[in-house]
Amino acid sequence: MKIVEYRVTPIAFGDPPVRAAMGLHAPYALRTIIELVADDGTTGISETHGGAAVVEDLNKVTDLVIGRDPFRLAELEHQICGDQQNSSANTPFWEGRLHSSPRTFGAIEVACLDMIGKATNRSVGDLLGGHVRERVDFSAYLFYKHHGAGGPYGFADDPNAVDGWPLARQQQALNAEELVAQALAMTKAFGFASLKLKAGVLEPEEEIRTIRLLRDAYGPATPLRIDPNTAWSLETSMACAKPLEGLLEYYEDPVAGKAEMAMLAKQTSLPLATNMCCVSFADLPATIQLGSVQIILGDHHFWGGLRASVQLARICQTWKIGLSMHSNSHLGISLAAMTHLAAAVPNLTYACDTHYPWQAEEIIVGGKLNFEHGSLAVPNEPGLGVTLDHSELARMHQQYVDCGLTVRDDQFEMQKIEPGWQARFPRW
Amino acid sequence: MKIVEYRVTPIAFGDPPVRAAMGLHAPYALRTIIELVADDGTTGISETHGGAAVVEDLNKVTDLVIGRDPFRLAELEHQICGDQQNSSANTPFWEGRLHSSPRTFGAIEVACLDMIGKATNRSVGDLLGGHVRERVDFSAYLFYKHHGAGGPYGFADDPNAVDGWPLARQQQALNAEELVAQALAMTKAFGFASLKLKAGVLEPEEEIRTIRLLRDAYGPATPLRIDPNTAWSLETSMACAKPLEGLLEYYEDPVAGKAEMAMLAKQTSLPLATNMCCVSFADLPATIQLGSVQIILGDHHFWGGLRASVQLARICQTWKIGLSMHSNSHLGISLAAMTHLAAAVPNLTYACDTHYPWQAEEIIVGGKLNFEHGSLAVPNEPGLGVTLDHSELARMHQQYVDCGLTVRDDQFEMQKIEPGWQARFPRW
Repeated sequence: MKIVEYRVTPIAFGDPPVRAAMGLHAPYALRTIIELVADDGTTGISETHGGAAVVEDLNKVTDLVIGRDPFRLAELEHQICGDQQNSSANTPFWEGRLHSSPRTFGAIEVACLDMIGKATNRSVGDLLGGHVRERVDFSAYLFYKHHGAGGPYGFADDPNAVDGWPLARQQQALNAEELVAQALAMTKAFGFASLKLKAGVLEPEEEIRTIRLLRDAYGPATPLRIDPNTAWSLETSMACAKPLEGLLEYYEDPVAGKAEMAMLAKQTSLPLATNMCCVSFADLPATIQLGSVQIILGDHHFWGGLRASVQLARICQTWKIGLSMHSNSHLGISLAAMTHLAAAVPNLTYACDTHYPWQAEEIIVGGKLNFEHGSLAVPNEPGLGVTLDHSELARMHQQYVDCGLTVRDDQFEMQKIEPGWQARFPRW
Repeated sequence: MKIVEYRVTPIAFGDPPVRAAMGLHAPYALRTIIELVADDGTTGISETHGGAAVVEDLNKVTDLVIGRDPFRLAELEHQICGDQQNSSANTPFWEGRLHSSPRTFGAIEVACLDMIGKATNRSVGDLLGGHVRERVDFSAYLFYKHHGAGGPYGFADDPNAVDGWPLARQQQALNAEELVAQALAMTKAFGFASLKLKAGVLEPEEEIRTIRLLRDAYGPATPLRIDPNTAWSLETSMACAKPLEGLLEYYEDPVAGKAEMAMLAKQTSLPLATNMCCVSFADLPATIQLGSVQIILGDHHFWGGLRASVQLARICQTWKIGLSMHSNSHLGISLAAMTHLAAAVPNLTYACDTHYPWQAEEIIVGGKLNFEHGSLAVPNEPGLGVTLDHSELARMHQQYVDCGLTVRDDQFEMQKIEPGWQARFPRW
């Protein structure tokens, strides 16, 4: 079995004007779709981060992919990533600054596993060791946001959004009350039983008030998380920890860097979580030595694929670190891969993050996957269990070309509505 | 696909009277053969440690195995091993005292991977990520020993051993010169390019003299290792390190325990290796924190199977610890599994240990696997690439019954030739 075709297609899809510490989401989110075809006609697909640099990285390794037996992945990883697992000396604020090698390999690995699954008539989850749960829980990902639906509508209403979540998701949420309304609409639509607030946007006092109102609205049993994306100083993180103690399931990346997270950990009873100070295997020794966090949010897109993520899970189990899952704006191919991974990892016990409800478009046949009671059924079909809709791929690729975006730049988007706005870390 | 048959068969095969710090090998080594049959007739086999307790552990989980889809291994591991990866509070001297759960799971996992490989027409190595090398290097495992061939011959000559290694392997080696003669015969027969001396048997001075003579006989380029199996005190280990510096590839388990190994590590430039103070995932945090070793000898038989061993390899890569492979007396099924594993792990860069040349019997169809230039070709056939010889299985099981051994007890065997002999740690 040999890979004879390898296609890398950049796409764009509508993304509402949600806020984070780095600024504002553009009207379109960028992703990249990888397609493989083997000499026997078996196909494999995957989805990863978007933009021109990602595509360039993926195209650079074409010669390593074409002609390869899709089972021979350890060699490909070694060729792409090398002996050292890519030190991340510059602790990134977000994925665009992550080291590219594990992302490049991971995108190809997922497509190969999809292909292997189809060739062997087994699900990707089974290739990872088999499902330990039949459904995977996700959390409600709540954003402060401006009015608007994203995509061609930008800050305007989607005329098709007549009721329910499609209507609610275009509403503004720029204070605690509006955020709670967003939460209630989202949990009503999808049934999520855990909530995560993307913070680092408003004054810390307002964000803490939001958490308090969410606690009031949902009662004591619903896990709540806050993620200021390192917009807070150590001093602010410590000051905010006090009113948040007893309210949070975990406190995610309030302050930047392993050392300051470790200092914070010594001062609060809140479990600390990260997808920013520990984003690669090279980050793990110092993270563990310092005691920076109690929970790591994995993400197969940048940790180097699904098997690497299972290996991360073993590391978390070994060092008694909790494991959760990070998300970016994504479509159903990524969601399927995330679901298989979460299903195959016994110690992934936290509900996973997902941006999925924020997107109206979908690139898989049959349209968007359905959450029930906040969870997804794990596909049992061969491979990822989802099929690429080629007409949607073509449409979204054209959208990529037409929108003119080639890199995610939330600061630039924010400056369109607030000239001179700067992403500052820490801001508070 | 469901497992419908699960057979656990204890076997015994001839083992020469080799010495180690624990005493003397019995005339028979004990192993256990696991056989699986799926509802579609696909089979899977594996080989693990021997004796009554191992068989009992394997039989206890019958209900978890029968009816299982062989791909659903993460769940089985979780059921057998639990959340915690079995702390090994009692640092073991050898495998008989290792925690049994990962061994039990690992034995079944290898048989399932053999079955999956046969069902998917792929090698076990491919299921682990694919081979990164086509041949796997092994080292010459040198033992001080008494005269004799083992098996029914005990301390007598095997009449079939007329020349070459079969004749040489029954010779006595109880001083440096005799050990070098053993080494030369073994490397001539198998082409091994690295040598490991099982030590902790004679006075340390004689063992160091053995290393010096091996260095003289093989020249400066041949890697040499010494393994006193914790028979040396910290003081002796430090004193012996000095004459060994510059002579060894690594210094394996001279002293017992993570803490004393770490103290030794601070005093010597020799890389320290272990398969005794770190034998489970639960051992890793303290081993790494203390800096006890530079090299871990993995062993899929007690680390919890082949995938767990790949995960150990990731941990070693992440913390920049070298990875080698440990061995016990074993047959070709284990050797095939070890070879697939070593072939699929890029950072397993040391030649693997193997006792294989010491055994004359074989349980796989076609007889013993052949080393060329000290290495084995990685099988590309489906599964492990070896087939169980059922007549040999029956014969070796009868041998198990007849020999009356149900546990490995090297001290007891040693007392037969030296009444009152005690295994003492440290002895020197």
